[in-house]
Amino acid sequence: MTLTDTIGYLAATLTTAAFVPQALLTLRTRDVSGISLGMYAVFTAGVAMWLAYGVALGEWPIIAANAATLGLAATILGMKLSIERRNRRRDGA
Amino acid sequence: MTLTDTIGYLAATLTTAAFVPQALLTLRTRDVSGISLGMYAVFTAGVAMWLAYGVALGEWPIIAANAATLGLAATILGMKLSIERRNRRRDGA
Repeated sequence: MTLTDTIGYLAATLTTAAFVPQALLTLRTRDVSGISLGMYAVFTAGVAMWLAYGVALGEWPIIAANAATLGLAATILGMKLSIERRNRRRDGA
Repeated sequence: MTLTDTIGYLAATLTTAAFVPQALLTLRTRDVSGISLGMYAVFTAGVAMWLAYGVALGEWPIIAANAATLGLAATILGMKLSIERRNRRRDGA
């Protein structure tokens, strides 16, 4: 593996793993007021397209990294939506 | 441009643009309690490595998308750090 490949794999690992502490924080605190719905809606759609791109190229590193990121981003998006819906109901809005 | 290229460019545009609404929300509300420091620290480092990967390959689409994402992610990371430091000082901790 070349140095450039190594940098690429390290980059992919970091940008995927980054969403683990966010998903854990949100699961633990259920504090979603400062999390942008727009960000997670657009980001989840974008990662789904990266996954489609990896499938089109048959490139397993792109497929694996984006499948993992998609799961994490969709989890955070789902928590944002469900926690805010519950809060609105609780507040009688 | 092939359909696969189009999907790739669309994916890159979405995963970069996604950070704009988060940066704007955080600038406006200064609500960073639900934002994970670990996520933005690891993500910013990962995007910097994607930028290095793009430079090593001489691939301008990778360089441009990751330079923009790096600026946005670093802005959110900087706000997370500075707003929490100010809040701790205000609370006398």
